[in-house]
Amino acid sequence: MPEVLNRFKVGDIKSRPIVIREHTSVYDSIVTLFLEDVGTLYVVDENGYLQGVVSRKDFLKTALGSADLHKMPVGVIMTRMPQIHFVTEEETMLDVVKRICEHEVDSLPVVRIEDNQNLKVVGRITKTNLAQLLLELSEGR
Amino acid sequence: MPEVLNRFKVGDIKSRPIVIREHTSVYDSIVTLFLEDVGTLYVVDENGYLQGVVSRKDFLKTALGSADLHKMPVGVIMTRMPQIHFVTEEETMLDVVKRICEHEVDSLPVVRIEDNQNLKVVGRITKTNLAQLLLELSEGR
Repeated sequence: MPEVLNRFKVGDIKSRPIVIREHTSVYDSIVTLFLEDVGTLYVVDENGYLQGVVSRKDFLKTALGSADLHKMPVGVIMTRMPQIHFVTEEETMLDVVKRICEHEVDSLPVVRIEDNQNLKVVGRITKTNLAQLLLELSEGR
Repeated sequence: MPEVLNRFKVGDIKSRPIVIREHTSVYDSIVTLFLEDVGTLYVVDENGYLQGVVSRKDFLKTALGSADLHKMPVGVIMTRMPQIHFVTEEETMLDVVKRICEHEVDSLPVVRIEDNQNLKVVGRITKTNLAQLLLELSEGR
């Protein structure tokens, strides 16, 4: 049955990525997280290339500490390449399931690998996208 | 294809619930969240009956405020019945998918409904359980 997940490409399912810059303060980043109602933000450079990933868990850990969240840039706490796991639009939802389970993450950035090997952020794909796909399939849509 | 999800009962898939008491401080609750590496805690009374649910998102919002996390009890910030969505062990993984999508939550407490109508917390079921089930099915296990 999960073979059917091979029929669905990441590019057709993906959600809009919510991106910030490395110098954005932790406080402003958390505000963005709530306003956009997402669990993970992607940090990009001026070209939209992936530099980092920061999750609700990272933010909570930082908020527990004594740092001034208004002054600390998100670049200090984000996960950087090559520790970031991602998918491309051509991969399938089965690839997403495998990568999410293997790396124990809630979501993956969707990227286009450019000629210069930089990763252009073009989306995000989450466990919610997966659940919604299953729901739609169950309803025969 | 999602019909196969009807074959799997919540009781066979569920994870161990991580529970705290209503008077536990927000700070100690967050420490438990990290130590157990979960996204949601369940608040129970002395009989193990469900009283509340508190998520990483609730904690992050509280941590941003000016409250003393060591003094504030988790009961102040938790979601209470009847606003809590749950499943029973006899329901299926398709029921889980439907409820998770409908209520936009990451996980659901698994409960047994007692004769006195109280809800005994016996597990938790998450989007991760769902992804792992799909992975196992894809590997033919």
